[in-house]
Amino acid sequence: MDQNEAKRLAARAAIDELPPRGVIGLGSGSTAKLFVDEVGARVKSGADYRCVPTSKGTRAQAEALGIPLLGDEDGWGEIAVTVDGADEVDERLNLIKGGGGALTREKIVNDATKRNVIIVDESKIKKRLGETWAVPVEVLRFGFGHTRDALAKLGKPSVRQKDGVTFITDAGNYILDVATGPIADPAALDRAMRDVPGVVETGLFVARASLVIVASAGGITRLTPKRGT
Amino acid sequence: MDQNEAKRLAARAAIDELPPRGVIGLGSGSTAKLFVDEVGARVKSGADYRCVPTSKGTRAQAEALGIPLLGDEDGWGEIAVTVDGADEVDERLNLIKGGGGALTREKIVNDATKRNVIIVDESKIKKRLGETWAVPVEVLRFGFGHTRDALAKLGKPSVRQKDGVTFITDAGNYILDVATGPIADPAALDRAMRDVPGVVETGLFVARASLVIVASAGGITRLTPKRGT
Repeated sequence: MDQNEAKRLAARAAIDELPPRGVIGLGSGSTAKLFVDEVGARVKSGADYRCVPTSKGTRAQAEALGIPLLGDEDGWGEIAVTVDGADEVDERLNLIKGGGGALTREKIVNDATKRNVIIVDESKIKKRLGETWAVPVEVLRFGFGHTRDALAKLGKPSVRQKDGVTFITDAGNYILDVATGPIADPAALDRAMRDVPGVVETGLFVARASLVIVASAGGITRLTPKRGT
Repeated sequence: MDQNEAKRLAARAAIDELPPRGVIGLGSGSTAKLFVDEVGARVKSGADYRCVPTSKGTRAQAEALGIPLLGDEDGWGEIAVTVDGADEVDERLNLIKGGGGALTREKIVNDATKRNVIIVDESKIKKRLGETWAVPVEVLRFGFGHTRDALAKLGKPSVRQKDGVTFITDAGNYILDVATGPIADPAALDRAMRDVPGVVETGLFVARASLVIVASAGGITRLTPKRGT
């Protein structure tokens, strides 16, 4: 089974986690994209969902599939289930997200959601966060040099580029990918990063996954957070 | 002495706090505006300053005065002194700022500054923050309804309006003015607010004033933080 097949397997398994109707959050990135395709097929078959997309890209995809969408500034109420991907998942089901640059919107939607389902292929499972992935941090353009210098006390920041130019988020900001190596305390690092004025949000998702669905050649594994961890 | 005279007195006293040359931060709001006028006069007399403005409004004012300015995204290095106003100052010299809506840029520039001088008239001095002023919080437009509901657990939020329309910050965001009443622990409230995804920055400036210059009919009083408070 190649990585793409695993991603699709996870996306399909996530469909079983949806209520029969209601407000659903749609993640961003390559694995979430496959899930949105599945939601589109459900809607075509008559399922009654209103969805909150976590990026302009996901909104465009969902619109093309005919999925009913709420507005970015609407009062969404409580979102029943959100399904999203992740770049790394540690043993306590903390996450690094933001490889696609949508971390801030993803975290807001996650925060508005009752049950957050994360779908990944097994390559994303790590003992500790930061082993292979840098922490994406969305930062304002104003004072950017100072913000980068302040974050350099917590890791090695580099300005995200895409297609040879500086990447700009949906909110018009920059992303600094802060390489830290294995992270001993993700909650403390998240807080230290957010203490820097100019930081809008970090890609550290601490205690924000209700269920992680992992797909591998052996099939699907479902991980839930242990109590008290 | 009316309030405007007091503000000008404070602005003039702040000039004495400037080094003979170097990088200076320029605050925003009605009192800071008077200080920027004074800096303009100094520059005209030959003073060698490069300045970092904390809002588009201050940049426009400083440009008109011929003050040399650094760019918003430049590496400023350490700013020697920043002079800015405040809406409330408590006994420990914690501040509420953001009446003019520039709180985020003001906090970034404050953070990049060695010595932060705050200039106020005596009406701004309170026993506790929050007595008469709401805490301005800059929030993203995406997910705005959820962010407002989350902040409603910490106070009574209202969306800032100006001239009959929703106020938009220099970064394109909204401001929620969160009425809290007297604040027992400004640092804890600041942290709780910043823990809400969608919050960009708060107008609570905790332990961020090096010197507060207070002007009243009796003249100038200089307040410095007590150690260990």
